[in-house]
Amino acid sequence: MTATLLSGKELAAAIRAEIAVKAAELSAVGVRPRLAVVYATADESAAWYVRLIAKTAEKVGVGCEIVDLGPDASERDVRYKLSSLSLDQRVHGIILQTPLPHGVRMQDVALAIAFEKDVDGANPLSLGRLVSGLPAFAPTTAEAVVRLLDHHHVELTGRRVAVVGRSAVVGKPVAHLLLNQNATVTVCHSRTKDLAEVTSSAEVVVAAVGKAGLITADHVAPGAVVVDVGTIPTESGGMVGDVEAEGVAAKAGALTPVPGGVGPVTTALLLQHTVQAASR
Amino acid sequence: MTATLLSGKELAAAIRAEIAVKAAELSAVGVRPRLAVVYATADESAAWYVRLIAKTAEKVGVGCEIVDLGPDASERDVRYKLSSLSLDQRVHGIILQTPLPHGVRMQDVALAIAFEKDVDGANPLSLGRLVSGLPAFAPTTAEAVVRLLDHHHVELTGRRVAVVGRSAVVGKPVAHLLLNQNATVTVCHSRTKDLAEVTSSAEVVVAAVGKAGLITADHVAPGAVVVDVGTIPTESGGMVGDVEAEGVAAKAGALTPVPGGVGPVTTALLLQHTVQAASR
Repeated sequence: MTATLLSGKELAAAIRAEIAVKAAELSAVGVRPRLAVVYATADESAAWYVRLIAKTAEKVGVGCEIVDLGPDASERDVRYKLSSLSLDQRVHGIILQTPLPHGVRMQDVALAIAFEKDVDGANPLSLGRLVSGLPAFAPTTAEAVVRLLDHHHVELTGRRVAVVGRSAVVGKPVAHLLLNQNATVTVCHSRTKDLAEVTSSAEVVVAAVGKAGLITADHVAPGAVVVDVGTIPTESGGMVGDVEAEGVAAKAGALTPVPGGVGPVTTALLLQHTVQAASR
Repeated sequence: MTATLLSGKELAAAIRAEIAVKAAELSAVGVRPRLAVVYATADESAAWYVRLIAKTAEKVGVGCEIVDLGPDASERDVRYKLSSLSLDQRVHGIILQTPLPHGVRMQDVALAIAFEKDVDGANPLSLGRLVSGLPAFAPTTAEAVVRLLDHHHVELTGRRVAVVGRSAVVGKPVAHLLLNQNATVTVCHSRTKDLAEVTSSAEVVVAAVGKAGLITADHVAPGAVVVDVGTIPTESGGMVGDVEAEGVAAKAGALTPVPGGVGPVTTALLLQHTVQAASR
């Protein structure tokens, strides 16, 4: 193994420490930052993640309200709840956990999240504002990628970055944020011809597909920086990423681990956005 | 010269013919499609373009209301006018012509254009909806690029496309539309290192910078397809693009002319969007 591991734990801890200070300051003047987490699924890993958010929030002095709509919630139920939380002055941040019930689409219902409280950038308005250069919260996973690279002093200006995956949740917003950092960005996807050739010509590879082991040593240039956004639960209760870690670590210059890379930074940013929303 | 010229005139004429039929059908049932063009500038080429839109609209049976706010209009004046046109039931499409008065930013004021009438995709909400896969009008210049390539049977699936320029008005939306067409898209800009090397490895190059002659023969692979989005007025009253046409035409496989390429398609799409908005 030659690659440096780009851990997200230290950055996440630093963000949490900063939040704890600001949350205490706000609470001292009567504003207790509060995040509402709405979910409507029986999915085990979603429930696990919601509990993790609540536990982390409590540690840093952010209130967390968990709203379980049940796996049979309709689109109307979800919209109604998001709208009423948007009007609730005690709530500063709102997220809607996936997966959603059958037939309910994130982009439709997320329009009901007031963009000032849209701390995971799920409302299409937030995405449009972000791309147009207006204040808005970025999707936290996308922002975590850029923050983690910055934390580890990975220069982006003028560098070639390949983003694998073109979702509106990660691929496209991360491409936008990397462009803002002056990287030359190529977005690849399932229809890309000769993916390995395209990604091997990049100095930084961001894998955001959700397909275990998709990115192998053949996909990366020697010495490249590889960011693994995938979080795929394994049968044994663990978690793996999009990157075949052992092979890639032997060739790349640096690699974010899964778990312990992008994930903890994402969770910390959710709470940081909530505190920022409460400060306004 | 070896390159085929990819004219936009025939496609624009076909779109206009289609609009004329639909506009007549709508008028027959009492709905006359109507576009409002707001401008607030003494710029000569803007005035010329506004007159062109009005003349084209008249020919195809679309009503066109020109609102001149004068070059000293404030942000509040512009917003107020866009909001009142958004509420006006006789108006189906609204565009705000650039340049804007000093201190007025498109992304701020365009939030006042109802997205259902935002026929040039200027409101950040339209951009966010587009990227999220919800119904919205794309910025017409970006859409014209993809429509023109389709008209000339240029396959995009799996092909490498380099977009030069990262504006929220053209570069980023065209990158999104090309991704939707399954191209592998690289966005380049002023900070890209060795631009010529990046663009020469693409099968299709889209130049959207607004810098006369930026793209030379050195920037394109032999046989590549080159789309020129630039429209830069010359001192002699003519217009040139981002592409150094003579040199590039000797090496590329195909090239869109300026004028007569993307431009006429853009204008036709503005009116097509207006008719679509009126049909709802």
